[in-house]
This record gives sequence, C-alpha cells and structure tokens, in this order.
Amino acid sequence: MTDTLPLVRGFRFAGIAAGIKKKPGAKDLALIAADRPVPTAGVFTRNLVRAAPVEISEARLRGGKAQALLANSGNANACTGKEGEREALASSRAVARALGVDEGLVLPSSTGVIGVVLPGQKLVDAAPALVGDLSEDGAARFAEAIMTTDRFRKTASATFRGTKGEGVLLGIAKGAGMIHPDMATTLGFLVTDVSASAAYLRRVLRRTVSETLNRISVDGDTSTNDSFYLMASGASQSPPLEEGGAASARFERALGEVLESLGRAMVSDGEGAEHAVRIEVLADTEAHALKVARTIAGSLLVKTALHGADPNWGRIIAAAGRAGVKFDPSKAEVSIGDVRVFHKGLPTFDAETDRRASAVMKQPHYAIRVALGTGRKKAHVLTSDLGHEYVRINADYRS
Amino acid sequence: MTDTLPLVRGFRFAGIAAGIKKKPGAKDLALIAADRPVPTAGVFTRNLVRAAPVEISEARLRGGKAQALLANSGNANACTGKEGEREALASSRAVARALGVDEGLVLPSSTGVIGVVLPGQKLVDAAPALVGDLSEDGAARFAEAIMTTDRFRKTASATFRGTKGEGVLLGIAKGAGMIHPDMATTLGFLVTDVSASAAYLRRVLRRTVSETLNRISVDGDTSTNDSFYLMASGASQSPPLEEGGAASARFERALGEVLESLGRAMVSDGEGAEHAVRIEVLADTEAHALKVARTIAGSLLVKTALHGADPNWGRIIAAAGRAGVKFDPSKAEVSIGDVRVFHKGLPTFDAETDRRASAVMKQPHYAIRVALGTGRKKAHVLTSDLGHEYVRINADYRS
Repeated sequence: MTDTLPLVRGFRFAGIAAGIKKKPGAKDLALIAADRPVPTAGVFTRNLVRAAPVEISEARLRGGKAQALLANSGNANACTGKEGEREALASSRAVARALGVDEGLVLPSSTGVIGVVLPGQKLVDAAPALVGDLSEDGAARFAEAIMTTDRFRKTASATFRGTKGEGVLLGIAKGAGMIHPDMATTLGFLVTDVSASAAYLRRVLRRTVSETLNRISVDGDTSTNDSFYLMASGASQSPPLEEGGAASARFERALGEVLESLGRAMVSDGEGAEHAVRIEVLADTEAHALKVARTIAGSLLVKTALHGADPNWGRIIAAAGRAGVKFDPSKAEVSIGDVRVFHKGLPTFDAETDRRASAVMKQPHYAIRVALGTGRKKAHVLTSDLGHEYVRINADYRS
Repeated sequence: MTDTLPLVRGFRFAGIAAGIKKKPGAKDLALIAADRPVPTAGVFTRNLVRAAPVEISEARLRGGKAQALLANSGNANACTGKEGEREALASSRAVARALGVDEGLVLPSSTGVIGVVLPGQKLVDAAPALVGDLSEDGAARFAEAIMTTDRFRKTASATFRGTKGEGVLLGIAKGAGMIHPDMATTLGFLVTDVSASAAYLRRVLRRTVSETLNRISVDGDTSTNDSFYLMASGASQSPPLEEGGAASARFERALGEVLESLGRAMVSDGEGAEHAVRIEVLADTEAHALKVARTIAGSLLVKTALHGADPNWGRIIAAAGRAGVKFDPSKAEVSIGDVRVFHKGLPTFDAETDRRASAVMKQPHYAIRVALGTGRKKAHVLTSDLGHEYVRINADYRS
C-alpha cells in the first residue's frame, strides 16, 4: 500500500466535499469516469437487506458496461424505501448529465449511516463541481472521499505483463468494521487499462474475491451496501484477456495481490484494531479448515485475547471445539508465530514459551496456526483484535 | 434473585478459600453434600474440547446417583490431558474420603483459566476443612466460591406444591462471559427436596434448559466446562414426581422460573454489561424466529449500539438480513420497547421517536421486537450490551 498511485489510462478520478458528512469540508463525494462506456463487473452484498444504490447498480450492470462509478460516504441510503431510490436515481442522473453520458452508465454506491434518506439535492448541486474535479491523478482524493470510520485511505496497485506490453491495475477501497468472510466486503473500486470482456471480468472478480476478501473477518456483521467493482478501459490497446491464457493468469495474480493487500488494510484498520492476525487451519478438507478458521477468527474471546497480547491458546482451542468440525483435541496443535503453545492435547507452556508467544502477539502482523491433526488441507482467515477503540467507535457511531 | 436463601432438606453446602485463586482469602472451593446417594441429572457442554472434570462427572452420572457436587473456581482444568484428569480424580477422592462416601458419588466441576493443570494437592489439603464447613445454610458461601469474573452471586429459588406438601427448589450458578445459546451454559447446581427418579430429572432438566439457558447470548463463545446439575434429595418424603402429573407440571414450571432467573442474572452480569435485552422475533416458524433472534443477539454492531443506547435499528435489520432466513424487508417491523422504529421497510424516525427509543435503551432491562412479516411464530434470546468493561475484563484475563 502506497499513496504514490499509478495513473491508469482511460480513467479520471474525483473526490470533493458535498456536505453529506457532518464535518464541514470533509470529502464525501467521489467519482471514477472512464473515457467511454467500458466492460465492468461487480460483486454485491449477500445481505437480504440491500441499499437502494446496490439494487440500482446491479440492475444497470446487467448489460456489462458502465462509464462512471459514483460513490458517497456519510450516508448508506439503506432501508430508505422508494424515497431513497428516488434520491439515488436523481443524484446519479445529475452526475450523468454533468458528464454528458447516459444515466444507465453511472453506477451509484453509498456508505455511512443506515436508514437516513440520501440528501440527493446535495449531490445534484455538487455534480458539476464533482465532474470538474476529475483528473487522471485524482485517485487519492477519490480514496479519501469514500472513507467513513476508516483511519487511513486504502489503495493498492500492481503492474503485470498483459497480452501486449504492461498492464496497470489500481484498487481503491474503504472498510474497517462490518467486514465478514461471506461478503463482497465494503466498497471497492478496481480499474485496469487492459482489454477484457465483462463476462471475463465477472468470472475473475468473483473467483479472486472469494479467495481474498471473503476470508477476512472484523466483526462478523455484513453490510447492506457492500459492493466491489472492476472496470477495464482497454486503453492499453492490447488484445483482450482470455481465460486460459498466460496473460490472464498474470492478471488474475495481480488482482489477487491487490485484493489481498486491500483486505489486509481493512483488517489492520478493523475499527480500533492494533493487530492483523492470519488464522491458518489444517484439517481433512479445505471446507472444514475454513469453518474452524472462521470460528476462531470470529470469537470475541479470541479477539480480546489478541488485543491483550495474551497467548490464551485455551480460547483458540475452545473456539475450534465449537466450530462443528470433528477432531481429536489430543492430536491438535496450536502455534503463535513460530512458538508452539499446544501439542497433543497439552500446553507446551512455561514462562519462557509464554514470554516468546506474547512477544509475537505484540507485532502488528502475525499468524496463528492450528493443525487439527485430521489432515493437511489448508485455509486461512484474516482477523483483527478487538479493543476499546472498537467499542468507542461503534457505541456511538450514529450520534 | 435474593440472598435470603431457603433451606433445602437433605442438603448441606460449603464454600471456602483453598488458595486456587491468586487473590489471598478468596473463596474458590465449594461443595454440596446430600445426606445419602440421591437421584441426580446433569447436562454438559457440547464443545468438542471438554475439561477433565466434565468427562469424569458425566461418566460417574451414568448410574443416575450422586452424593456430592464438588466445584472449584480459579482453574478450569481443561486441555490438561492425563495430568489434569489425575488431579481431578485425586481431589474428588480426597473429598469423598473426608465425607466418608464412595468416590464415584462425588461429581467434580471446575471453572477458571484453561490449560493450567488443577493444583490438586491444594484441594486434597483443603478437603477436611471443606467438609467441616458444610452447613444447611451454607448456600451463599457455595455461590461465592464458584464465582470467576462474576460481579455478583447468582442464586434463585422457588417453592411449589409437590405430590404431598410444599417442595423447595434452589439454584446456584456462575456465569458472565462464555455464554452461548447452544450450550448448557456455565456451572449450575440445582437442588430440591422432593422425590424423583434420575431419568425423570434428566428429561425435565434437558427440556427446561433448552427453553431458558440455551436462549441466552453474551459473547457467542462456549466453554469447555459448562455443566448444570439437578439433585433431588427426597427428604420431603413425598411420592416421586412423574411426568404427566399435576405436581410434575408445577415442578417443571418452578424449574423454568429458577433457570430463567439465573439466566437473566448471567446476562445482566455479561462481562461489563449494563443492559439485559430480550430480542423477540416473529417469523413463519419458531426455528426461523430463533435463528434471526440469535443472529441479532450475537451481532457485535448491535451489542455496541445497545451499549451506546443508540436506537440503531439499521444494524438490527441488517443482522436479521444476514441470518439466512428469507423475508421481505419492506414488510418487517422493529420496535424498541413500545417505540416502533421501523415499519414497512422504512424508519418511523424523527427526533421525538429517537428520543423515546433512546430513553427505553437506557433502562437495565427492555425488549427489542422484530416482526419479519412472514408469520406469528415467536422465539426470543436474551443478550447484553458490549462495552469497554468487556474488553478490559477479557483482554487481560489470564494475567
């Protein structure tokens, strides 16, 4: 993650203050505009309760093309009924007009407080200024304008050898709380200058998201607004990526790296989190390993122990024991970093081991490995510690 | 809940300090002794990882009779392998000797930190003093000696018309964190002076626990040690309770009330909790209602909103939306106390509603009602708010 963001041919970015957030001057309206309608894919929240912009954008994406991604922070426009839909439509229409494009090519997304109707007029009024703010090097402004409880901007980029010459991929996301392994996870915007069909983008995005973003857990809740977009401008003038090709494999690897990096950033920023911890589990099947990893990653007792840098493997093994996966605790192993703390049903525990394990847990990033003793199939989930900041941020978010 | 505890004929209670807890003089060893071997039932944790005393007690209970319930706090003796088993056996043997009963009639249970072998010698040394402390009015000392992170003793009692004369039921429990709807839930000890077979006690205990204690949620974790016991001394000399009888129905109702009361006390004491909140859900089936109620009750975002007295129905409806139960959000309703905050997919929200809902949420006990609009089958789960105290208590429990 760095803020020296690469330019991505074919795209311009904007981020301005439109008065949606309470704090005066805080950026809260963001736009990515392609030079023309381009192949676009999206993955959306699986929550039954979906915000108005999610419904609108998913419907508009059926054609596989879009020209602009519009996003606001400060208001999720979720659970706002017909009125919320009207405001979302009005604001994306205003932006479409200011851009001079068909309104069906503008995909809105919103993030922030639930249940308050989007103040559409503010977006309508700000549309000309938003479009005026567009620039090729505006990605940092875009990233700032989609932040809610985020403590820092989240961007990641990669270059890869395309079908002809070098391709660039840039990802921008927001997300701190409300991150759950079963979801597309918060708002994310990926743009690349290579050529690809919408169908190709959709397949690759789905596959890659399920391997990366769907493996992170901050608080187990899932948003009404989660959306991740991938747009390909084709400005590199290279032949389209196609599955099975070597260039496609390189692109998919780059996409995986960018998503993984954005995911790590979200976990590190897990509301009030001080540690991003990779929970790795070995079991007889990957599905079992994942189930146990998710249960450990979601355990409040584990997460508070991570916060206290307390090598409380008892909570880890107890969480594994309730995951609904059969194993024999007397054959299980737990390591914190390289320190083995539980082996053959017994703690390998003494003052020195305790000190070493606790030292690992003071690091911002580390891994906890749990081998159930049933096999070597692996899965991992990223999680964060839960501390006072989480409570402070979330007990009083609305007010 | 009251501390003027009734005497229960046929039982004596003890609670002393045996040096298991770090704090000098803190009570940590407890005993209930019946005058003779009596019918006894138990329900135990469903966690795959079970502490040594759970294994021992469950095996000993197969005969359906016991004479003593031995409990210690300060050490869970879980994940301690053969050594832990040896220490548990040694300590229950010492208590059996001091009591002059067969060791198979003593059921040990432990609560406290996981993964440290029980210091059995301390219990062995304390056994004579423990037995010497037994008295008919010792239930409050017992209740104190099983506390870990509990902020207060948990006892509840009821009288009921038995098969002949009045019966007395006394319940003593511990539990604050680690409470989960799918479990027997923490340690609990129920004694009554009426007559009943072990098989009868087992059936009634299971049924009643699943309707009461299995409907509470503090942090979603489940313990390696959870156990609930029910002993009937028969000292009332009344004919045995039998299913189908009117006295049995009265006994079961009394048992339900005692368990419900103990459950409420545990939720109120949910580590650092300031509010005990009943989440009631109406759906097409009770199973669906329960699933949604549990998801809402377990949501971190909901629990922190409860802490902040923030009527954030958006988080409630979003939690319902990810519970895996189909419903149409535009037909759902949410009320906080008597204040309807969400109706037909829209918030019924204005400054006055907000103020009234927030006032409800400042109370120590209240209900949140969610009607999915799919039917009128009802289920509820008790939950608590999650605040700074939870983090403080759990981030540093071991140290």
